[in-house]
Amino acid sequence: MNSVPPEKHSVTDLALFGGPPLFSTPRPIGQLDAPPLEEYLALARRILVERRFTNDGPLVQELEVRLAAYHGVGHCIALANAGVGLMMLMQIFPAGRRGEIVMPAFSYRGLPHFAQWADQMPRFADVDPDTHTLSPATVEAVLGENTTAILGVCNFNHPGDIDGLCDLARRRGLPIFFDSVAGQGATHQGRMLGGFGRAEVFSLHATKLLNGFEGGYVTTDDGELAQVLRCQRNFGFGLDGGPVAGLNAKLNEFHAAMALLCLDRIDETIAANRVRYQAYQRVCAGIPGLRLVDYAAGERSNYHMVVAELTEGWPLDRDRTVALMRAEGAVVGLYYSPPLHLSSHCPKGYAVAPLPVSESLARRVLQLPAGAMTSLDDVASIGALLRFVSQEGAAIVRRLAAEGQS
Amino acid sequence: MNSVPPEKHSVTDLALFGGPPLFSTPRPIGQLDAPPLEEYLALARRILVERRFTNDGPLVQELEVRLAAYHGVGHCIALANAGVGLMMLMQIFPAGRRGEIVMPAFSYRGLPHFAQWADQMPRFADVDPDTHTLSPATVEAVLGENTTAILGVCNFNHPGDIDGLCDLARRRGLPIFFDSVAGQGATHQGRMLGGFGRAEVFSLHATKLLNGFEGGYVTTDDGELAQVLRCQRNFGFGLDGGPVAGLNAKLNEFHAAMALLCLDRIDETIAANRVRYQAYQRVCAGIPGLRLVDYAAGERSNYHMVVAELTEGWPLDRDRTVALMRAEGAVVGLYYSPPLHLSSHCPKGYAVAPLPVSESLARRVLQLPAGAMTSLDDVASIGALLRFVSQEGAAIVRRLAAEGQS
Repeated sequence: MNSVPPEKHSVTDLALFGGPPLFSTPRPIGQLDAPPLEEYLALARRILVERRFTNDGPLVQELEVRLAAYHGVGHCIALANAGVGLMMLMQIFPAGRRGEIVMPAFSYRGLPHFAQWADQMPRFADVDPDTHTLSPATVEAVLGENTTAILGVCNFNHPGDIDGLCDLARRRGLPIFFDSVAGQGATHQGRMLGGFGRAEVFSLHATKLLNGFEGGYVTTDDGELAQVLRCQRNFGFGLDGGPVAGLNAKLNEFHAAMALLCLDRIDETIAANRVRYQAYQRVCAGIPGLRLVDYAAGERSNYHMVVAELTEGWPLDRDRTVALMRAEGAVVGLYYSPPLHLSSHCPKGYAVAPLPVSESLARRVLQLPAGAMTSLDDVASIGALLRFVSQEGAAIVRRLAAEGQS
Repeated sequence: MNSVPPEKHSVTDLALFGGPPLFSTPRPIGQLDAPPLEEYLALARRILVERRFTNDGPLVQELEVRLAAYHGVGHCIALANAGVGLMMLMQIFPAGRRGEIVMPAFSYRGLPHFAQWADQMPRFADVDPDTHTLSPATVEAVLGENTTAILGVCNFNHPGDIDGLCDLARRRGLPIFFDSVAGQGATHQGRMLGGFGRAEVFSLHATKLLNGFEGGYVTTDDGELAQVLRCQRNFGFGLDGGPVAGLNAKLNEFHAAMALLCLDRIDETIAANRVRYQAYQRVCAGIPGLRLVDYAAGERSNYHMVVAELTEGWPLDRDRTVALMRAEGAVVGLYYSPPLHLSSHCPKGYAVAPLPVSESLARRVLQLPAGAMTSLDDVASIGALLRFVSQEGAAIVRRLAAEGQS
C-alpha cells in the first residue's frame, strides 16, 4: 500500500524512546509555497529601483484588483495581516456600542484578543460536530441583548452553514462577517468564499494557502465599508472622528509581490495539496482509531490542511500522540486546543458555559505535516509510522508507564 | 552663494501660474535610504532559500540584538510598525484602568487613534515653544485623577526636557514612555535615546532614518516589560489573560534584512543628512521671514528633517506657500498641522482647551524636501526658489488675488 517500508521495527526505534527520528529536518504543517526564486527577486529589484516601498504602491493595488476578481467581490483591501483585519471589523460593526461578539470556541486563539482590542467581549458558541463551525442553533443559544455582531469562522474542511447563519443574522438585525482564513480558494454552494456576510477576512501568512510572507486582506461588496477600511488602515486619515479608530495596517510592496506570484500558481498549489491529501487518505486507510477529516463534498476546497481525528481504538491520548510524532520530526499541530473558552491566555470576564462539541473536538484532533515541504514519500513515512503506533500501541503504553511518562 | 541660478525670473515662471515646475520628478521629504541593491537581494535570496519567512527568524533576532546595542539598552522588541508599538504600550501601562494618556497636541495624527484602540482617551498638552515637545509645566497643567500615563514625543530637532518629564512622572506615580520615532540616532545629554522612561518606540518605515521598508521597535531596560511585549506581538501566547491583549505585530525577515543593511550605514546616512541640512542653512541664510529650525546644541542629531518656520516678513501664509512649492515638485510637508486637538479626524470626546503654542507652531512650520532623493543641487534650487518667493512676494500675492486664489 505504500512503497516506503516502515522504518520502525520495535518500540525502541521510536525517537521518543531514543531511536533516530524519521525526519532529520522537521516537516511543518504550513503551506510555505514559494514561486521560482528568480521571479521574486526580479520583482524585488524593481521595487528597490523604483523606491516604491510602501503606502498603497502599484503592486498592492494590482494585488487588490486580482484578489477581488479571484473571490468574485467588488472590493479587496490589503492589510498588514489578517488579525488586524479582524480587529478593524470587530471595531467597525458594533459602531461604538460595547458588547459581545459571538464567535466559535473551536477556533484560533487570537480571536478573543482581537475582540478585546475592539472593546468587545468574546461570546463563545459551540460548533457543529460535522462542519466544526458555528451553526444557527449554536449561535442562537448565546445571542442576547449585548450581542453586537456574529463572527463566523470558516474551517479548513467546511465553511459551514453560511446561509443559515446569514439568515439568522438578518432576522436578529445583527452584522455578520467571516474569518475565512482557512477557506481561501474554497466555495460554498459553488460560489467562491469572499462575498458572504458583510465582509470576509483572509490571510497572506507564509503558512497559509497564498503566501505573501505575511499579510492579509478583507473582501466585501460594500463600497462604503471598503472606504472606511482604507482610511482605517492608514492611521484613520479621512475618517470623521466616530467610533472607528485608525492604525497602521498597510501592506508593503514586497509582500504584495510575493502574493501576486503565488496567486499566479494557486491552482497548481491546490492541485498538489489534493494529491498530498489523497496520498494521506491511502496510507491511513484502515488504521484503527484514526480518521482523516473529510473536505466538504461537492465544493472546491484548498486541501491545504490534513487533520486527523483520533477515535475509539487509538491506543494513545492526543497529547502523547503529538509528543511521539514531534519527536520523529513530524511537526504535528494542536488544532484549536484548548478550546477558546477554556484557554488560560484568553482575556478574562466572558461568560463560560460548557460547549461539549468544541471540548470534544479539541481533545481528539491533530494536524499532520502538509504543504510544500512535505513530499509524497514523507506522507508514506508518516502513514507507516501511524500504522506502527496503532499496531504497537499496547507496547508503547507499557514503555511510557515504565519510563514514568504515563 | 549658490551655484545654481534661480530658474524663476518672473512670477509667471512659477508652476502655480503655469510655468514649468522646478522638478519634473517630485522631491520627497522622507529619508528613503537604500543599501546597494545586490546586498539586499543576496539577503532576500537567503531568506527564500531557507524559507525562514516570519515568526522570530534569525534576521529579526540579529536586528534586535544590534538595535539594543545601538541604543544602549537591555531589550529591543521588533514590531510590524511603530504605531502598533504605541498601541501596545498604551494598553500595557494603564493596566486595565480606563483613563487619559497625556500626549502633545503638536504631534503625529495617529497618536489619538492608538489611544482609542487601547481604550484610553487622549489628553492633549501644549508644547514648549523652543523644543516643540512636552514640558513639565505643560504636562502638569493637564494631569488629573484620570491620567493613566504620559507619552512624551521626541521631535526631530529636540528630545525635550526628558529629565524634567521623568521627574514629574515619578513624583506623580505615573508611567512615562516616549515616541522617539523622530529621534533615531539622537542623544539626550550625550546618551543615546532608547533607554529613557519605561520604554521608547522607534520606526523602521522607509521615510524614517532607518529604512526597513516598514516596521518598528520598542526599546526598554525592563526585562519583564520586554517579555510581555514579545507575547503580546504574537497573539498574546504566554500571557495570563489580564488586561493585555495580543495581536499580530510581528516583523518579517525581509524587513529585518533591509533594516540591518541600513543600520550598517547609519552613520554615513546621518553625515549626508548633516551636509544637506547645512546646505539648506547656507542657501536660506538671510531670506526674510524664513527660519530653519535648529537642531539641539551639543547633542547628536540625525539631521533627517529640514523644517522651516515662516515668521513675520514672509509674504504668503503657510498653506499658499505649501501649494506654491508643491506645484514646483518640492513635496513640502505640513508638519503637524492641524494640531491634534483641532483635528477633525480625531476620536471624539476628549477635553479641548486652547493650546496656543501648538496652534501657533502648526500654522507656521513646513517640512522641506530632504533625504536620499534630494541632492545638494536640489537644495540650492529650493533655496533659490524660496528667495525668489520672498523677493517677489507682493507680486505673487497680487497675482493670486487676480486669479481669485487669495
